[in-house]
Amino acid sequence: MLIRPKEGILDPQGEAVERALPALGFDGVANVHVGRMVELEVEDEHQIEPMCEKLLANPLVEDYEIQLIGSAETA
Amino acid sequence: MLIRPKEGILDPQGEAVERALPALGFDGVANVHVGRMVELEVEDEHQIEPMCEKLLANPLVEDYEIQLIGSAETA
Repeated sequence: MLIRPKEGILDPQGEAVERALPALGFDGVANVHVGRMVELEVEDEHQIEPMCEKLLANPLVEDYEIQLIGSAETA
Repeated sequence: MLIRPKEGILDPQGEAVERALPALGFDGVANVHVGRMVELEVEDEHQIEPMCEKLLANPLVEDYEIQLIGSAETA
């Protein structure tokens, strides 16, 4: 699962990275967003969305995206 | 960029999630790993790897994966 701040919600980590990069000599960087990635193996993929809602993401301020990587694969 | 703990390095967030999910009624979950996702727009894509090395990831304990999403796209 990829979990990112919703559009319009403050992203202080992204802002910090965006300010830090020019100081390290990296120019031409914009729209930095920092989110989380959760990888797991699950027997029943229908559990993934409720997991995101209840534990992994904060649906008030975060969006999540679910990517399935095959069945019985070790992702 | 997707940034994840290296194999064999402790992943306390992943362990916490793996312990918490059964308590919420989610069973059959294994190998939970929590990492970070950084999205940004950059003019010169060759800057991305040194950015990861210098600021975004800790190469001692983390691996990173770079995914390019088109040119002049807002990712």
